[in-house]
Amino acid sequence: MSTELIQKAEKVLQEFKAHPPQPREIQLGASALAAMIDHTLLKPEATPAMIDKLCAEAREYRFASVCVNPHNVARCVQQLQGSSIPVCAVVGFPLGATLSEVKAFEAAKCIAQGAQEIDMVLNIGALKAKDFDLVREDIAAVARTCHQKGALCKVIIEAALLEDLEKVLACLLIVEAGADFCKTSTGFGPGGATVEDVALMRATVGPKFGVKAAGGIRSYEKAIAMIAAGANRLGASSGVKIIQEAPTP
Amino acid sequence: MSTELIQKAEKVLQEFKAHPPQPREIQLGASALAAMIDHTLLKPEATPAMIDKLCAEAREYRFASVCVNPHNVARCVQQLQGSSIPVCAVVGFPLGATLSEVKAFEAAKCIAQGAQEIDMVLNIGALKAKDFDLVREDIAAVARTCHQKGALCKVIIEAALLEDLEKVLACLLIVEAGADFCKTSTGFGPGGATVEDVALMRATVGPKFGVKAAGGIRSYEKAIAMIAAGANRLGASSGVKIIQEAPTP
Repeated sequence: MSTELIQKAEKVLQEFKAHPPQPREIQLGASALAAMIDHTLLKPEATPAMIDKLCAEAREYRFASVCVNPHNVARCVQQLQGSSIPVCAVVGFPLGATLSEVKAFEAAKCIAQGAQEIDMVLNIGALKAKDFDLVREDIAAVARTCHQKGALCKVIIEAALLEDLEKVLACLLIVEAGADFCKTSTGFGPGGATVEDVALMRATVGPKFGVKAAGGIRSYEKAIAMIAAGANRLGASSGVKIIQEAPTP
Repeated sequence: MSTELIQKAEKVLQEFKAHPPQPREIQLGASALAAMIDHTLLKPEATPAMIDKLCAEAREYRFASVCVNPHNVARCVQQLQGSSIPVCAVVGFPLGATLSEVKAFEAAKCIAQGAQEIDMVLNIGALKAKDFDLVREDIAAVARTCHQKGALCKVIIEAALLEDLEKVLACLLIVEAGADFCKTSTGFGPGGATVEDVALMRATVGPKFGVKAAGGIRSYEKAIAMIAAGANRLGASSGVKIIQEAPTP
């Protein structure tokens, strides 16, 4: 089972390297781009005033969601009432090294407070140790919790800590576990989203699965490059700056 | 209530600045120093082999504890069987921005797996927003969980993110909430332990409360400076190097 998965991952990686996918040509106006951005504030020192500003900006620019720590979910839900903009909460964040039942409990509590999307971090140490059953079950526990309540489940692989083969393995496990998105980075690790990682992740999960690029996306140019490489969602704390840089149609 | 606390904190800070405490003269051999160090491995990519090495080193040098992520508690408990060295787990780590009930649940699960010490991160955003009741209750929820099961509760203030007055407020709240230790840093923030912060924290909590210095302590010299400033516990991932640098008696 574990050998099979490694063989499958090796094949994906070989194919990717033999035939690197060409980035698509992308033309995106400000509002279409905003609709792909999770407007993000995950600093531990974020105050209610900063959270309120985040929500006001999300209303103004119509971002895909606001992405916050669990402590701030209830406030965001209240601030975004009537806007139809969902609240995204991070879980097991940013290390991914807590117990599966804690991740599932945290997701359930965030959803109970009104979160409609959950960005969890997978168990990186278990992935490195090739304990694929643990990695898959860890994700599945959160994905089940999300789907019971109609919430989306995105899974962060923290690509900067992984070898290419581990990135592919992580994405295969995310698909197997029944989550909705793979996501590149927490923004707290040693590196953020890269075009290469996004392309590899897209190649691994196929055209219909979610790929979220996050970490270090601070310009319109970089945002577009991520989408051209295959991302269909972005996470950024510089969303307003990115949108303001978009060419006027 | 909130004004009273701020006045008390201002008084502590004034007194501290008017009469800066002099560092004590410290002489500590290797084994006495080892007994004050939480031997720490919190990297999300830590593998079982790395965890086993950590535990073997803890046995060899007789460290105060091993400090790990929740995912690794059960393995450490098993590896340390018969050694009487406790396992310390981090909770709400490293951002401290999750819900209080999630922190308490996580602490309970770690203790159920055999952890005897819990290092939690306080709610930094709530502290900055002067929501002292939330900060106190957040700590108390974890401290109660710990004490019901005979575990120690240490509380990380992430000093590098705080003004001096906030550091004092945090420590006063930690004492009020009934925890056992205040702790300087997670090691994942923008700065680690400093002699000044340790001295200020010791001055705030008085001589009988716990003060743990952690973050960036990588030499015998720095370890001793922390203890001289008032720390009675250290957190370090370089514990073996620190001990090997200790002068032979």
